Amino acid sequence: MSHDKEIDTLIAEIREFAVSRDWEQFHTPKNLAMAIAGEAGELVAEFQWLKEEESVRKALSEKKFSDIELEVADVAIYLLRLSDVLGIDLAQAIRKKMEINQARF
Amino acid sequence: MSHDKEIDTLIAEIREFAVSRDWEQFHTPKNLAMAIAGEAGELVAEFQWLKEEESVRKALSEKKFSDIELEVADVAIYLLRLSDVLGIDLAQAIRKKMEINQARF
Amino acid sequence: MSHDKEIDTLIAEIREFAVSRDWEQFHTPKNLAMAIAGEAGELVAEFQWLKEEESVRKALSEKKFSDIELEVADVAIYLLRLSDVLGIDLAQAIRKKMEINQARF
Amino acid sequence: MSHDKEIDTLIAEIREFAVSRDWEQFHTPKNLAMAIAGEAGELVAEFQWLKEEESVRKALSEKKFSDIELEVADVAIYLLRLSDVLGIDLAQAIRKKMEINQARF
Repeated sequence: MSHDKEIDTLIAEIREFAVSRDWEQFHTPKNLAMAIAGEAGELVAEFQWLKEEESVRKALSEKKFSDIELEVADVAIYLLRLSDVLGIDLAQAIRKKMEINQARF
Repeated sequence: MSHDKEIDTLIAEIREFAVSRDWEQFHTPKNLAMAIAGEAGELVAEFQWLKEEESVRKALSEKKFSDIELEVADVAIYLLRLSDVLGIDLAQAIRKKMEINQARF
Repeated sequence: MSHDKEIDTLIAEIREFAVSRDWEQFHTPKNLAMAIAGEAGELVAEFQWLKEEESVRKALSEKKFSDIELEVADVAIYLLRLSDVLGIDLAQAIRKKMEINQARF
Repeated sequence: MSHDKEIDTLIAEIREFAVSRDWEQFHTPKNLAMAIAGEAGELVAEFQWLKEEESVRKALSEKKFSDIELEVADVAIYLLRLSDVLGIDLAQAIRKKMEINQARF
């Protein structure tokens, strides 16, 4: 039986990138949480002067879409890196939170 | 040959949750970017008074670790939802950004 | 001649609050920047599901307005505290940035 | 008797800057909250790889201090602008929140 390892593979690639640059010393959970907040700030800034209807895919220029895509990737990269250094099983954490949300809403 | 569909499966689960509550109307890219920033703020707040060495896995209480895990999940859920509504292939976007980073650093 | 000291007075009140609780040890610039990001996340979350026209003063309930007011205050408190510990003259910094903006736009 | 008007004066200068560029249309409370989150993200990013002791005034280079000062100003400018468009008396809001904090801690 094959197991999905898509997230683990991405995490390993991101870890390798950090390790090969000797960045592990900077990648404490505290610092990575800051990096996520920083990148989330850049992502929200992409949308701040757009009306809601201007923010949908078909209303975005290719340039704007590509900028947003890379900001989304930046948040994801640090989120996967934080999950790695804290030993969080991200898919499991998402499902745990979804169950809580199911009970709440 | 089996393809990894772990991220697509999570995205579909999150979409189903939103659709069944008629929340699609709220889930514009602009609003989802705000939600990511909001959850990233809650995540960074978990770490704000901890020293770096207090933020590592073995120094965290089970309660604190669980709180952090759920905040990480919240950021991830909205990031996957935004990827869904914008039609971003998240794994591909991450690799595209990693290549840019490889060239830069 | 009277000098305006409104901001300095607020800063002194906030400092006194922190000092009397022995919180100066936590109020490093790094940590205060995190606190600002955390509170900014709570502020943006107040607006995330509102349409732009629902976010204006006259469309907000008294309860919602009061919640927003307190989140604005939270960001301001940590911003004044950070200015204090770093020795930033906030009014002067704002005017310096406004001049840069004047030249840019 | 003289009244302090330092904050009102700054607010008026920032309003004039926006009005003269016809930016009032963009300055809805929702959008300004996003701008605050975006700038707070840039501010926290200034500190993300610094150790706490490297983040204090005397450890910062003049260049780094100036960058931080301008990011602090950016958050403050949008916070004052949001206070303006929502009709929040910022000094009063801060004191209201401080009283709540006094009761809590």
